[in-house]
Amino acid sequence: MTHRRSKRLADAAGLPAYAVVRQAKRARYDPDTVHAILDQGMVGHLGFVADERPMVIPMAYARAGACLYLHGASKTRAMGLAPGVPACLTVTLLDGIVAARSAFNHSVNYRSVVVHGTIRPVGDATEKEEALRLITDHLLPGRWTEVRPMLDRERKATGVIALDIKAASAKVREGGPIDDEDDRELSVWGGVVPVVTALGQPVPDGLQPVDTPIPSSISAARRKFA
Amino acid sequence: MTHRRSKRLADAAGLPAYAVVRQAKRARYDPDTVHAILDQGMVGHLGFVADERPMVIPMAYARAGACLYLHGASKTRAMGLAPGVPACLTVTLLDGIVAARSAFNHSVNYRSVVVHGTIRPVGDATEKEEALRLITDHLLPGRWTEVRPMLDRERKATGVIALDIKAASAKVREGGPIDDEDDRELSVWGGVVPVVTALGQPVPDGLQPVDTPIPSSISAARRKFA
Repeated sequence: MTHRRSKRLADAAGLPAYAVVRQAKRARYDPDTVHAILDQGMVGHLGFVADERPMVIPMAYARAGACLYLHGASKTRAMGLAPGVPACLTVTLLDGIVAARSAFNHSVNYRSVVVHGTIRPVGDATEKEEALRLITDHLLPGRWTEVRPMLDRERKATGVIALDIKAASAKVREGGPIDDEDDRELSVWGGVVPVVTALGQPVPDGLQPVDTPIPSSISAARRKFA
Repeated sequence: MTHRRSKRLADAAGLPAYAVVRQAKRARYDPDTVHAILDQGMVGHLGFVADERPMVIPMAYARAGACLYLHGASKTRAMGLAPGVPACLTVTLLDGIVAARSAFNHSVNYRSVVVHGTIRPVGDATEKEEALRLITDHLLPGRWTEVRPMLDRERKATGVIALDIKAASAKVREGGPIDDEDDRELSVWGGVVPVVTALGQPVPDGLQPVDTPIPSSISAARRKFA
């Protein structure tokens, strides 16, 4: 599951891509694949350097073209990252455990994207509002218009940063185990154990009448992340 | 979902912990919580610095006491990290989408651990073999003894690094939305949409007789990750 940088650029749709040196057969550079994985992920892992140490934090996010938006409480370290600081956001969708007939040939099926870019604090009120809408609607499509509008004090308490994508690469592994020729006759079970991620039945918090219908944002989310 | 460092250390069980400054009520430092999350994760996100840029890579891993093992093809960048290099491994288990009556109070339920440590290449043959067993058995408990033993050329082609845990902190968010008092009467649905991750029905690759039983490692994995 290793992404390595090279000088190769795939600049389609403004997305220069990192090439994957190891197991290049699993690498994808086309924006459609990259975007589909980013749009399907529920959580991203943001990497940045703090006090000369790498830091990786799970974060909600949303994509707008070749830009990713992240939000958090204004006073958090991530929201205080300076303009131009390099950062990395990685999104991984795990699809299966691949059981081979040797430990060496075990693998996992997955789709992942590694995005490299630079931080851009979002101060413009219009862009910030749009970013917050996108992040809210990323997990629950349409939720922004279902809820009580945002208050000024909430806007102040919320920080938004953009990660302008400078390079992105996807990796996809799918299918069954690839066993050595000599191992294929062994009496060892080989195959794939699917990893299933889905949204379950919504659990109301009890403040609404019991017959309140499930809002469309949640139905949409259950379809999106099915 | 932000982890911030402080001088506070929780040294129980050799695990000095990072304190969480924001939303400290969600922070946990006890080794039992940290270990349980690490043991339950299927994929970790390893952060390190390469060419002065942060890099985040999804990786399989396993824990042994206060040490995490990671493996990969010998020639990958992660496996080539030098002794003493600082690294961060983050494991996130997403449990639910928390739908509140304002966008601001939306959240997610999750359990996450951020581990900071330093890289230690594993050269010792015995430790390396044990690490590979632990990584294999982390996803499929007991698989190591079901499969064909590892060959010397496979050992050579596989790199193992240890991340000796210097600090670890867990964050846990659970329960329903916490709405503003004024919002509780709004006619907006509030509650939690569970995120369910589980292992599905194993899919054999067709090289074994159709009545070959599912091996115990896979049954154990389906119980572990249920």
